[in-house]
Amino acid sequence: MSRPMRLGEMTTVEAAEAVTGSPVVIIPAGAFEQHGPGMPLATDQIRAEAVVDRVVTALGGRAVIGPALPVGVSPHHLAFTGTVSLTSTTFAALVREYADNLHRHGWRKVLVVTGHGGNNATLTTVAQDLLTTHPDLQFAWTPVTALAAEVIAGMRVGEVHGHSGEAETAQMLFLAPHLVHQDRLAAGARSRADLGPLAGLALRGSPPTLTVRYDRLSENGVLGDPRRATSEDGAAIVDAVVRRIVAFVEEWLTT
Amino acid sequence: MSRPMRLGEMTTVEAAEAVTGSPVVIIPAGAFEQHGPGMPLATDQIRAEAVVDRVVTALGGRAVIGPALPVGVSPHHLAFTGTVSLTSTTFAALVREYADNLHRHGWRKVLVVTGHGGNNATLTTVAQDLLTTHPDLQFAWTPVTALAAEVIAGMRVGEVHGHSGEAETAQMLFLAPHLVHQDRLAAGARSRADLGPLAGLALRGSPPTLTVRYDRLSENGVLGDPRRATSEDGAAIVDAVVRRIVAFVEEWLTT
Amino acid sequence: MSRPMRLGEMTTVEAAEAVTGSPVVIIPAGAFEQHGPGMPLATDQIRAEAVVDRVVTALGGRAVIGPALPVGVSPHHLAFTGTVSLTSTTFAALVREYADNLHRHGWRKVLVVTGHGGNNATLTTVAQDLLTTHPDLQFAWTPVTALAAEVIAGMRVGEVHGHSGEAETAQMLFLAPHLVHQDRLAAGARSRADLGPLAGLALRGSPPTLTVRYDRLSENGVLGDPRRATSEDGAAIVDAVVRRIVAFVEEWLTT
Amino acid sequence: MSRPMRLGEMTTVEAAEAVTGSPVVIIPAGAFEQHGPGMPLATDQIRAEAVVDRVVTALGGRAVIGPALPVGVSPHHLAFTGTVSLTSTTFAALVREYADNLHRHGWRKVLVVTGHGGNNATLTTVAQDLLTTHPDLQFAWTPVTALAAEVIAGMRVGEVHGHSGEAETAQMLFLAPHLVHQDRLAAGARSRADLGPLAGLALRGSPPTLTVRYDRLSENGVLGDPRRATSEDGAAIVDAVVRRIVAFVEEWLTT
Amino acid sequence: MSRPMRLGEMTTVEAAEAVTGSPVVIIPAGAFEQHGPGMPLATDQIRAEAVVDRVVTALGGRAVIGPALPVGVSPHHLAFTGTVSLTSTTFAALVREYADNLHRHGWRKVLVVTGHGGNNATLTTVAQDLLTTHPDLQFAWTPVTALAAEVIAGMRVGEVHGHSGEAETAQMLFLAPHLVHQDRLAAGARSRADLGPLAGLALRGSPPTLTVRYDRLSENGVLGDPRRATSEDGAAIVDAVVRRIVAFVEEWLTT
Amino acid sequence: MSRPMRLGEMTTVEAAEAVTGSPVVIIPAGAFEQHGPGMPLATDQIRAEAVVDRVVTALGGRAVIGPALPVGVSPHHLAFTGTVSLTSTTFAALVREYADNLHRHGWRKVLVVTGHGGNNATLTTVAQDLLTTHPDLQFAWTPVTALAAEVIAGMRVGEVHGHSGEAETAQMLFLAPHLVHQDRLAAGARSRADLGPLAGLALRGSPPTLTVRYDRLSENGVLGDPRRATSEDGAAIVDAVVRRIVAFVEEWLTT
Repeated sequence: MSRPMRLGEMTTVEAAEAVTGSPVVIIPAGAFEQHGPGMPLATDQIRAEAVVDRVVTALGGRAVIGPALPVGVSPHHLAFTGTVSLTSTTFAALVREYADNLHRHGWRKVLVVTGHGGNNATLTTVAQDLLTTHPDLQFAWTPVTALAAEVIAGMRVGEVHGHSGEAETAQMLFLAPHLVHQDRLAAGARSRADLGPLAGLALRGSPPTLTVRYDRLSENGVLGDPRRATSEDGAAIVDAVVRRIVAFVEEWLTT
Repeated sequence: MSRPMRLGEMTTVEAAEAVTGSPVVIIPAGAFEQHGPGMPLATDQIRAEAVVDRVVTALGGRAVIGPALPVGVSPHHLAFTGTVSLTSTTFAALVREYADNLHRHGWRKVLVVTGHGGNNATLTTVAQDLLTTHPDLQFAWTPVTALAAEVIAGMRVGEVHGHSGEAETAQMLFLAPHLVHQDRLAAGARSRADLGPLAGLALRGSPPTLTVRYDRLSENGVLGDPRRATSEDGAAIVDAVVRRIVAFVEEWLTT
Repeated sequence: MSRPMRLGEMTTVEAAEAVTGSPVVIIPAGAFEQHGPGMPLATDQIRAEAVVDRVVTALGGRAVIGPALPVGVSPHHLAFTGTVSLTSTTFAALVREYADNLHRHGWRKVLVVTGHGGNNATLTTVAQDLLTTHPDLQFAWTPVTALAAEVIAGMRVGEVHGHSGEAETAQMLFLAPHLVHQDRLAAGARSRADLGPLAGLALRGSPPTLTVRYDRLSENGVLGDPRRATSEDGAAIVDAVVRRIVAFVEEWLTT
Repeated sequence: MSRPMRLGEMTTVEAAEAVTGSPVVIIPAGAFEQHGPGMPLATDQIRAEAVVDRVVTALGGRAVIGPALPVGVSPHHLAFTGTVSLTSTTFAALVREYADNLHRHGWRKVLVVTGHGGNNATLTTVAQDLLTTHPDLQFAWTPVTALAAEVIAGMRVGEVHGHSGEAETAQMLFLAPHLVHQDRLAAGARSRADLGPLAGLALRGSPPTLTVRYDRLSENGVLGDPRRATSEDGAAIVDAVVRRIVAFVEEWLTT
Repeated sequence: MSRPMRLGEMTTVEAAEAVTGSPVVIIPAGAFEQHGPGMPLATDQIRAEAVVDRVVTALGGRAVIGPALPVGVSPHHLAFTGTVSLTSTTFAALVREYADNLHRHGWRKVLVVTGHGGNNATLTTVAQDLLTTHPDLQFAWTPVTALAAEVIAGMRVGEVHGHSGEAETAQMLFLAPHLVHQDRLAAGARSRADLGPLAGLALRGSPPTLTVRYDRLSENGVLGDPRRATSEDGAAIVDAVVRRIVAFVEEWLTT
Repeated sequence: MSRPMRLGEMTTVEAAEAVTGSPVVIIPAGAFEQHGPGMPLATDQIRAEAVVDRVVTALGGRAVIGPALPVGVSPHHLAFTGTVSLTSTTFAALVREYADNLHRHGWRKVLVVTGHGGNNATLTTVAQDLLTTHPDLQFAWTPVTALAAEVIAGMRVGEVHGHSGEAETAQMLFLAPHLVHQDRLAAGARSRADLGPLAGLALRGSPPTLTVRYDRLSENGVLGDPRRATSEDGAAIVDAVVRRIVAFVEEWLTT
């Protein structure tokens, strides 16, 4: 009988076998933050978990799903009700303690898949700090949507798109359509002309990097036009993301 | 159309309405720790979430489910593979930041339902610290199993019972039978005569309180005999727990 | 010649002998907080120290008194002038560093006796964290008054009693009568009917647990009627508490 | 009837009066550290408390004694059994929280009298940090023995003297003779010729300052010859110290 | 007479004028880390400071140079002697306190120019945290070399290049040729074929991102061939970087 | 060819040789704080670096200059624009991490030369904490101006002198005359009669020690009369300071 692919659904006896049988632990990280008038606060977590499920399934037992990180670093969305954000310090402590405990049990490869870009920097600082404290642990992390840049480039996206826009909405239409209120989807800024000077500067797409609160970027919290999203595009994005991560893990397992 | 009862499934617009319409946020807290040879690591989280779902359903819109706390404070179980534990410092920071953010959006009543007793002390310290930092926030917390003490007293439990024993297993048989391996369930210490001197001292049930690692209390991580558990007992426990919490929240809403 | 029973009164040479001769270190923990119009701020520390003195005397050299913790976690009393409270973080650091230093010198059994219930949760978190950082240290803690529940049940206490009430005042009348102003003792809430809705909810005595500032529970900071307290009751409480702790330590010494 | 001079012995009602009547809070700080083969671990605390008692008595109600700091920063003595030391971080947090709470109740003048030189630096950092966080609080601190430099210069002290030497022993012979084991007092280094090169460098008495563990400075933890100490010298030292502090507070009260 | 362009060379009176006259503070951040056998540990700081000097000169008084950050986050280089690295926590605290103090004096635009990519993630977390604590502060940061990607693409660089390689060496040959030991410059990995499997995975250039210690990436700490670098290329890189940053600040000043 | 005397100008290969060849690392620490109307904010850093350069030159290769600490602990000067101050916690972390990294590479002697007295206390707490965490590291620190007390006593200084006064200005006139605006130099309090009661108490020069913000000590941030300073006095001060530090290091190298 096959072992479950979620560590949380294993017994401790099964977990002990998984340390050698499934040497990679993959942790989904999301956010609990506004996604405009039509999508739910848990959007990033839902996408991360769906991707991780597909990745672990594809890896056929060589990886297990670790404990989730359902809340991320989202101070830029705090002006929108419902957003719950961790400080970067607390999010880092959380990831570090997950990694330390898995390492204690014998795992040496931990991968965090984050549906929320606001977690990227903190995940990098954790990776840096672990080099000193856990030199024999290999810690990797990856965003979701960014892995499908080529697919998105082939979609009909506007000049400005991003948070709660075409690509995120497409993924949600494919993965959790019951949580997308298509009738309430509304566009935010779609072209650079729609942006004020500060938002224009913050969204140039190249450094210097200016971090700005989302309520100063977009009145409804959206960048781009989610109404253009289709479930088909979402499937293509998810598929590309999963393939990229699976390819990485397969190469990783040979190192 | 009714608003979803999970904050994570709401849009930010719906969340803004919930601040007044659903003035209580209930947060399920679990653990990611060994539950003997027959039950999964996520046992405490599964029970907490199931209780919270029932409580919020019973409250009919007056409460919402907040972001989860899937990993708790479990250093006593770290010798058993798969256990992931937060330090009390990090778990406290996590709860404090959830509470602070919900308070920032306008909520004034937050209740944490913890399926894991190892979280109790840290939840209490958070409640204490919030008195100074957020004087107008009302923060409450509750265990799960302990609310059904009378039901459990009426079950056939042994002299020694507790972690992964009759009561926890019964709840899981009722709530998530597919995750309980009845063929692998095994008894731990059932009577005080089964305990060594240190375990006997730690399990006296009254203070002074001596905290001991579970690998020194029970070889297989179990206290009591999970094989005696029935789904019917589990239903009775969950029902009692839900009724107690609902009654508390209803009284709370009138203060 | 007998060694002093207080570590602070020993020389370093005597302390080195005590590591083996007196393998238990007992630390009194108090609070610096309001105790109503008739009792002093140091009430909890006075009671803890008196109990510890008697316990160590009864143990006849097998335990020593460690450095004191005169200030505890009392944010709920900060509205009353004179209360000095540590954050739970600082109180935990203090206890952890005491324990770490005693462990460094060779002691493996440390017991904290706290006269103040507000310290209980933090002491538990310290016990949890020490399981990971100091696995061969046995750390125990105990409240004072709660150990004499049977004695108190036999006293004439009202429906509502607690902080600065019958039991605490009785102990002080026995232990430090010169610091009790009997002419100024005044009752707080004595029956549930005296309580407002929030106080009633917070003082139900069973979980869910709602932590509330004392100025919202009782105008004069008192729960119960301290005027009913007698020195004789105090002696009976102290005697029961001491016997319970001594019995625990004697059993502990055999493990 | 006069109010007690110890805050811990006051009721909250008396404390509220003391905020205006006794606008200075004086906190004794000690250490819990080796004092050679003849003096107790609590030596610094005993001297600090005795000085503070005399100062507050002399001030006749214009100051009160705050909660004690019985353990200080003593990492340099940790090689000697019985020493309990706080990290500078925890000692600073402790002092800062005492000060913050007293400030919250209305006091604006806090003075720490430290019997232990190892606390001086941390007290200074607290004073610095409070300038930013509590700009209207006046925080002062003072050592004990150093205030009597002229008296000590008039005693027969050797070329090298200091920790547990002539001056500290004299104070203890005057203040707590029952805790001084005169038959066990033993000299440490008395002249620079007794010192190894590293100890000689560390004890030059002028900067650059090299901090060295006491077990590398003196085999028995003593600097100087405690056998030369007399109770009369101790009385003269204490008297000079008390006068200096009283004079400071009296001037302070006029600012 | 013109005000100096360095805040450190201004008097407090001149600084007070600069708050309005020079509303942007630019802070150079470097690293103290190995740069192979031919370049100095301060390479990143030298380049950052040179760029900032040129940027501020070009801005003609509208910006000032703030206090430097000479040491960065370099745990990946710690196996190479001389590397001094801050934890991400301490580097973040440093940047946050610089920013907080400048904000306190009235500045609202702070830009960090980092010569070291290892600082990027921590700078981003600081930017995120400041959104909550200092909502009216605009905090931006930029790398150096990455701003000249087009110039570098036009240079003769190998398949693998990076740390201490063609681009960094070129900048140093232009900015501080006396500190480059051209006779000792040595190539590290130049093509993917030179890399072992783990290094190959870590240097794929696209996510998932695996952070690896430099001693596992390159024996001599170099990626690419610094011997190919020319001062002319360095000048072109610096010129492009400066122009990009100046353009950003000029646009920023209009928002 | 001689190795550079600055670690930052060495390659990692040269640094590896310096661990044995130059066993002392000397770190200059300054401040970024007001120095009255005529001297720059970086005054303390400039003086510390100049002294360290001369010390290391005099030691002829037996010491190297480590990474700088350009910002110190200056909360007392924050009312004056341009002052950037670290909390004592962050400054301590910085010094501790520098020391830890140098220790990791093999150095066992680290000396911090601080041009700013506000850093003294934090440097002492770091020295204390390192005794426990790095018992084989020798950590020393020294002020600058205080080492030349005899020279200053021979100068014409007023009854009150100190920050930005005769001695500091003299050093700057010698070391960096282009940064001293002699036409803008202005006296602050010169005699005790110029001081208000609180300033008088804070500047008594002997304990008890009262730390007061500089804006309450002196309106223009100056104590003493900088107009009396001469470059010749500055040269004499610097010379005395350098000789004292060199003598210390030479003795240290023999231990």
